Amino acid sequence: MRLATLLLSACLLPAHALAAETRIPDAAFDSAAELRERALADDTAWKVVESLTTEIGPRLAGSEADARAVAWAQAKFRELGYDKVWTEPVTFPKWERRGESAQVLGAHAQPLLVTALGGSPGGTVEAEIVRFENFEALQAAPAGALAGRIAFVDMHMERTRDGSGYGKAGAVRGKGPSEAIRKGAVGYLMRSIGTSPHRVANTGITRFDAGLTPIPSAALSLPDADQLARLLQRGPVRVRLALDCGWDGEYTSHNVIGEITGRETPDEVVLIGGHLDSWDLGTGAIDDASGIGITMAAGQLIGQLPQRPKRTIRVVAFANEEQGLLGGREYARRHAGDVAKHVIAAESDFGAGRIYGFSTGAPAHAQAASARIAEALAPLGIEHMPGKGGAGPDISPLAAIGGAWAWLGQDGTQYFDLHHNADDTLDKIDRDDLAQNVAAYTVFAWLAAEAEGDFGSAPKTAGE
Amino acid sequence: MRLATLLLSACLLPAHALAAETRIPDAAFDSAAELRERALADDTAWKVVESLTTEIGPRLAGSEADARAVAWAQAKFRELGYDKVWTEPVTFPKWERRGESAQVLGAHAQPLLVTALGGSPGGTVEAEIVRFENFEALQAAPAGALAGRIAFVDMHMERTRDGSGYGKAGAVRGKGPSEAIRKGAVGYLMRSIGTSPHRVANTGITRFDAGLTPIPSAALSLPDADQLARLLQRGPVRVRLALDCGWDGEYTSHNVIGEITGRETPDEVVLIGGHLDSWDLGTGAIDDASGIGITMAAGQLIGQLPQRPKRTIRVVAFANEEQGLLGGREYARRHAGDVAKHVIAAESDFGAGRIYGFSTGAPAHAQAASARIAEALAPLGIEHMPGKGGAGPDISPLAAIGGAWAWLGQDGTQYFDLHHNADDTLDKIDRDDLAQNVAAYTVFAWLAAEAEGDFGSAPKTAGE
Repeated sequence: MRLATLLLSACLLPAHALAAETRIPDAAFDSAAELRERALADDTAWKVVESLTTEIGPRLAGSEADARAVAWAQAKFRELGYDKVWTEPVTFPKWERRGESAQVLGAHAQPLLVTALGGSPGGTVEAEIVRFENFEALQAAPAGALAGRIAFVDMHMERTRDGSGYGKAGAVRGKGPSEAIRKGAVGYLMRSIGTSPHRVANTGITRFDAGLTPIPSAALSLPDADQLARLLQRGPVRVRLALDCGWDGEYTSHNVIGEITGRETPDEVVLIGGHLDSWDLGTGAIDDASGIGITMAAGQLIGQLPQRPKRTIRVVAFANEEQGLLGGREYARRHAGDVAKHVIAAESDFGAGRIYGFSTGAPAHAQAASARIAEALAPLGIEHMPGKGGAGPDISPLAAIGGAWAWLGQDGTQYFDLHHNADDTLDKIDRDDLAQNVAAYTVFAWLAAEAEGDFGSAPKTAGE
Repeated sequence: MRLATLLLSACLLPAHALAAETRIPDAAFDSAAELRERALADDTAWKVVESLTTEIGPRLAGSEADARAVAWAQAKFRELGYDKVWTEPVTFPKWERRGESAQVLGAHAQPLLVTALGGSPGGTVEAEIVRFENFEALQAAPAGALAGRIAFVDMHMERTRDGSGYGKAGAVRGKGPSEAIRKGAVGYLMRSIGTSPHRVANTGITRFDAGLTPIPSAALSLPDADQLARLLQRGPVRVRLALDCGWDGEYTSHNVIGEITGRETPDEVVLIGGHLDSWDLGTGAIDDASGIGITMAAGQLIGQLPQRPKRTIRVVAFANEEQGLLGGREYARRHAGDVAKHVIAAESDFGAGRIYGFSTGAPAHAQAASARIAEALAPLGIEHMPGKGGAGPDISPLAAIGGAWAWLGQDGTQYFDLHHNADDTLDKIDRDDLAQNVAAYTVFAWLAAEAEGDFGSAPKTAGE
C-alpha cells in the first residue's frame, strides 16, 4: 500500500478501525512555538560543543580521552539540570593510531599526506601503485593483478545536500582493502571519501573479510590523490607506505544517559542523542559534539519548563559510534525488552548544518501526528518529507528491533569537507545554524513527549 | 619634490634639460596588444606550474629536490626555446625539517598541530604557556617573566589585497623568538602568519639575534591557536613541544637563467623571474611555481615573435628565496658591475591572483614610458598606480644597488590562505588568473625591451 493511500485511510476510517490515531494536543502545539523561539535565542548547545571540543578535544574510542569524555558527559548532564544521569558499559576492541606517512620514491620523490583507515594494521610496504577509478574497477581487475602492488582507488565523491555521495563512495573504504587483498595487493591507498580541497585526509573504519591477512590501508587528501594520479600519467610510481597503528586488546567505555523524567508516564521515553566519541584527527566538532550539544540543549530547554513533559526525554551520548555503532548496538541489546517504551528516537549525527527536512517511520495511525510536528517545525524552514530519511546510526539497531524513529535531516553540503578529517574543529560551526537544530530537536522531542498515542514502536525480530 | 610635479616637469621641459625622455615606440605598443591576446589564450604557464609542482613537488632549499629543481629549470628553459640557458651558484647554510609535534599535557591532554619555523633548532621542551596578544605585548613583558616558560604570541593577521597584513605581522615570526629568549623563554609558539581557517600551519624563516641561544620555535594552525587560547582561559596550560630540525652544513644551489637574446643591444636586459625553491609543506604552487611559470611563459611568448626584441629578456629562477633572498643577493653581488645594463626588473612572487596595479620606481624621464606601459596593461584590468608597490624580494638587492624595478601588483586576498603551508598545491591556482599574469608580464617585458631610453638604472651604493 502506498503512503498516500494509508494517510487517506487514517483520515476517513473511524479511529477504532485501526490503531487509535495518535494526536498532538493543541496546548502542546502552542507551547512548542514558545520553546522554538527560546531555543533559537539559547546558546547552551554552543557552550556544550565548545566545552567538549576544547576540554576533551579528540576522543578516539578506547583512548585516554574516551574516559575523560564519559566523565565530562555525566558532569554536563548534571550541570544542565537533568533529573537522572547514568552510564551503561560498552565493550569493544581498541584501535590505536601512532604514526603514518607515505612517500613517492625515485625521480619524483616527495611525501604524500595520508591517514590510516580505522582498523588498518600497521606495517611498511614499498611497492608500485596501480590506480583504479572506483571500487567496481578494482573488483574487475583479474585475480593476481595486484600481486606485490599497492592498490589506489581514486574515486571522486559527489557533494550533495543529503549525503548520498557518501553512501555511493562507501565501498571504497569498507570493502576496498579486502578486495585489494584478494587481487594480491600488499597495501591499499584511496582518495579520501570527502569533499575538502585542503591537505586533510579522511579516516573512517574499514573491515577486512574473514580469512584475509589485513594490509596497511590509508586515505590520501584530495590534493595528494590528484598529485599521485598526475605522477602515474608520467609512468610507474613506487610508494613507501608506513603505518604504525592497529588493534590492541579490549576497552570498556560507556553510553552516558541523562533524563528529564516524565510527569505522567516516566517509563515511556522519547530518545534523542548523538555520539560522544570522535575520530582522532580533529576535535570532533561536527562529528559529533554538535549532536551532543544539540540534544543536551534540547533536553535542558524542555527541563526548564514549569512542569515536566508527560513522557521522559532521554538524551543518550553514545559510545564508539565511529568503529561500528558499538554504543548504539549495545543500547538496543540492553533495552530490547523495552522497545515499545521507546516512543520514538532520533539521533543528530550529520553535523551542524541547518535542518531542512523532517519525517518519521511511523505507521498510518501516527502520520497525522507526524505531520502536526512538521507543522510546528515549518517556521524553522523545515519541510515535511514523508518517505525520506531514516534512523540515525546509533538509533538504527533499536529501529531494527521495532523502535519508531524520526529523521531531522541536516544540510550536509559542507559536511564532508570536515567529516573524519583534521578540519573538524569548533570554528567550522555556525552558531545560528546550531540554534536552529536545537529548536527543531526541542520542538520534536516536546511534541512526541506530549503526544496522545504512539508512533508505532513494537518489538520485532531484527530484520523483520 | 612630489611625483605629480616631477611628471609635470618631464612634460613641460625640453628633453635635453633632463635625461632624455624614455619612450615606447608606437609599433611596439601595437604589438603589445597582440601579445596580450595571445598570452591570455596560452596555457604554457599552467603547464610549467603543473610540471614543477608535480615532478619535483616540495623543493626546500638545500634538499635533494633542490638539485632536481635546478635540473628541471634548465631543461624547461631549453624546451621553451630560450636562446641561452645557464646557472650561477648560490651557497647557503642548509636547514632541515625531520619531525615536529606538540601536545597539551594534563587534564585537557590533546595534540596541537604545529610546524617548525625555518631556522629553528630541534629540541623538546615541556613548559607552561604564557600568551601574548602581539609582538609588542611580548616586548613589554618584564625581564625574566618567561623564565622556564613557552611564549605564545597569538596575533591575528589581517586579510588584505595588497599583503600589508603580512608586513604588520612579520615581527612575530622574525623577531619574536629572540625577544622570547631575552625574557627567559625555553620555547616559542606563534599563531601562524596566515589567514587559512584550516588545519595547516605556516612556516617561514626566523632569525635569532647574535649572542642568544636559539630555542625551539614553531607556528600553530589558526584553529590550534584558538584552541590553545580557549584552554588558557580555563587555567594554566603545559605543552610539550618536540622539534626535530636544524642547520646542517652548507649547500650550493643555483640561480637558473634563460635568455631570449636581444637583436640590437643584447647586453641590455629586461629581467623578470620568480624563485625556484619552496617551503617543504606544500608543493610551492603559488609560492612560487606560479612566478616561474608566469615569467618563463612570458619570455617564451616574446621568443615566438618573428624577430627577437631589441633588448634581451632574461628570466631568472632564483635559488633559496625563502631563507633570506639568497639567490637574489648572490645575483646582485655577481652582477653589481652590470647594474646599468639591467634596464628594469620585476619578480612575480605573490601567488597567482590577478594583477590589479602597475608602477615602476623609474625617475621623471621614464614616467611617461611607465604610463604608456600601464596603458597597454589597462585592458587586463590593471590600474596605473604610481607611487605604489616596490621591488620584488629577489629584485630588491639589485634595486638597492641602483637597478630600476617595476611592480605588477597581484591580488593577495587569498594568498595567505596558502603561503608557506601545506595547502600550497596546484589545485589552488585559477588558470584564467594565471593567464592574466602572463599577459601582463609579457606586455611589460616586451615594451621595456623595445623602449627607447632607460628606466633609471644606474650604479649606487646599497642603501644610498
